[in-house]
Amino acid sequence: MRTAVLRAGAMVVRDDVPEPVPGPGQVLVAVKACGICGSDLHFAAHGDQMLAAGAEMEGMPDTLAGIDLAADVYLGHEFSAEVLEAGPGTDAPAPGTLVTSVPVLVTPTGLDMIVYSNHTVGGYSERMLLSAPLLLPVPNGLDARHAALTEPMAVGLHAVNTSKIERGETALVIGCGPIGIAIVAALKYRGVETIVASDFSPTRRTLAEVVGAHVSVDPAQGSPFHQSRPAVVFEAVGAPGVIDDVLRRAPAGARVVVAGVCMQPDTVHPFYASAKQISLHFVFGYEPTEFAESLRAIAEGDIDVAPLITGEVDLDGVAGAFADLADPERHCKIVVTP
Amino acid sequence: MRTAVLRAGAMVVRDDVPEPVPGPGQVLVAVKACGICGSDLHFAAHGDQMLAAGAEMEGMPDTLAGIDLAADVYLGHEFSAEVLEAGPGTDAPAPGTLVTSVPVLVTPTGLDMIVYSNHTVGGYSERMLLSAPLLLPVPNGLDARHAALTEPMAVGLHAVNTSKIERGETALVIGCGPIGIAIVAALKYRGVETIVASDFSPTRRTLAEVVGAHVSVDPAQGSPFHQSRPAVVFEAVGAPGVIDDVLRRAPAGARVVVAGVCMQPDTVHPFYASAKQISLHFVFGYEPTEFAESLRAIAEGDIDVAPLITGEVDLDGVAGAFADLADPERHCKIVVTP
Repeated sequence: MRTAVLRAGAMVVRDDVPEPVPGPGQVLVAVKACGICGSDLHFAAHGDQMLAAGAEMEGMPDTLAGIDLAADVYLGHEFSAEVLEAGPGTDAPAPGTLVTSVPVLVTPTGLDMIVYSNHTVGGYSERMLLSAPLLLPVPNGLDARHAALTEPMAVGLHAVNTSKIERGETALVIGCGPIGIAIVAALKYRGVETIVASDFSPTRRTLAEVVGAHVSVDPAQGSPFHQSRPAVVFEAVGAPGVIDDVLRRAPAGARVVVAGVCMQPDTVHPFYASAKQISLHFVFGYEPTEFAESLRAIAEGDIDVAPLITGEVDLDGVAGAFADLADPERHCKIVVTP
Repeated sequence: MRTAVLRAGAMVVRDDVPEPVPGPGQVLVAVKACGICGSDLHFAAHGDQMLAAGAEMEGMPDTLAGIDLAADVYLGHEFSAEVLEAGPGTDAPAPGTLVTSVPVLVTPTGLDMIVYSNHTVGGYSERMLLSAPLLLPVPNGLDARHAALTEPMAVGLHAVNTSKIERGETALVIGCGPIGIAIVAALKYRGVETIVASDFSPTRRTLAEVVGAHVSVDPAQGSPFHQSRPAVVFEAVGAPGVIDDVLRRAPAGARVVVAGVCMQPDTVHPFYASAKQISLHFVFGYEPTEFAESLRAIAEGDIDVAPLITGEVDLDGVAGAFADLADPERHCKIVVTP
């Protein structure tokens, strides 16, 4: 079958990837849509750094261990797909059902994350395997491309849930890439009454307003902290220096949710955080319940993901889409429809 | 009157400080005991850095603004004192009553922090002013030196309260200086069942066990994270590199309470925190209710501060005590009895 893979830092299309065969508890699906995530771009460019950081860390299973960057890597974890065939003795939705799932494949030897792998095919492929017990049928005739955005919107919902923000509290979202936009949408969904969004890009600021920001700020025109006094700050940039700037400028007592993933070492002034008793909540991913709620909210129209989709490509267009996503004026989310 | 002051980086005794005169709402007291806080040592050595950091920060009133390091600075914020005389029309405990107070002086122009000041006398003095509405009479005939430790023990209690630790969760306290020891004591007071304390100093490890640690660890013999799996980590060192080491080694989902105050820029790897969804809660000071609870817990014997006091000096001994506190094998807390 045809699959776009990461090879030596670039996305290439193979047409010789073996057809996956569903085992017990697994389901073969035809991918209908798969969003390109910023983390895929980052892994393509800096996979070696990510693997090194994963190996340095203690305190959690190293899910990146064993990935060989010299071999092809499968990517694509924001997908919707149509059920084709269930594995032996497996209870699954009827063939033809549109589904989505958290990107985890249950195998006889454990759980495989469907995110970066030398052996588990991801969503940039004609077909892939999913886990029958994890499948969520897509309701309300929701467009497959919109259903594929369940995953990034769940990331936003998880960030907002972690903040425990109250409706009357002011939220400031710094960075309006896909994660920042997902956070703005989740804040609106939760009924937060004052949502301020900050980004250097006018296109992204406009998008933030479309999905729910009440005010958008260009940080080139002055600190967003001079125009709001947020109780909760969402850092959705993930570049060095941003956390320290937030610590220096945020009001005393602010809760800071760090949703951006900064791979480089970063310099901070802990004294800023100490003197102001700031809390920093680093978030990553989501709970399965948040994933399910994200799908329901999108399907019921409570979260509108249509404005996020700024491009659509087939498998042959994946490499170009990776390049195009570097320009914030052109794109938010490109969806691959194999 | 006689007062030890900070002059050009060193503590010197003056005997010409004008006698304070209590205004309405104020009370003149005779200091009975005042603990020497690590932050006083830090201010003496790096006051210029602290003032610069305070000036850089936004989002809170700059309580350090206006301090002139070229002039004498009054220090001393962990005190107990005897009431001498109330200001005009002021309702206060009877003369002779032993009291303590949060280190704040209410003045006609606002609140003065009794911590670093060119004009408000602190606890390294024969006499000082306090605010009548903030006075807490010391109950149960508690020793004045023990009552003076209400303040640092409140810092520990605040750190523990902020963590929202449950009794069944494992706590790891990194650094067993006075703040780490206060945290261990507060954890024991809250009934936490597994308290692990880590310090390079054998004397400090022993002290941690005396006040409540179930296990003490020498980090030179291996990471404390290899000998425990803490749900909550208390960082009570405040030196560069410690936060990053905690982020790298802590278990996924750990709550990290940063009680140490690191004045220097520090390098961290945000990715460690992101991948493990760690939260960092920077704490500073305490609530007035925590201060009052600290006094009650000490007076009722629920927190025993006697083992912390490793030295006692008069005003002439303050300069030497500042020097002696550098050696963790010799001292935890030195109390000044003017």
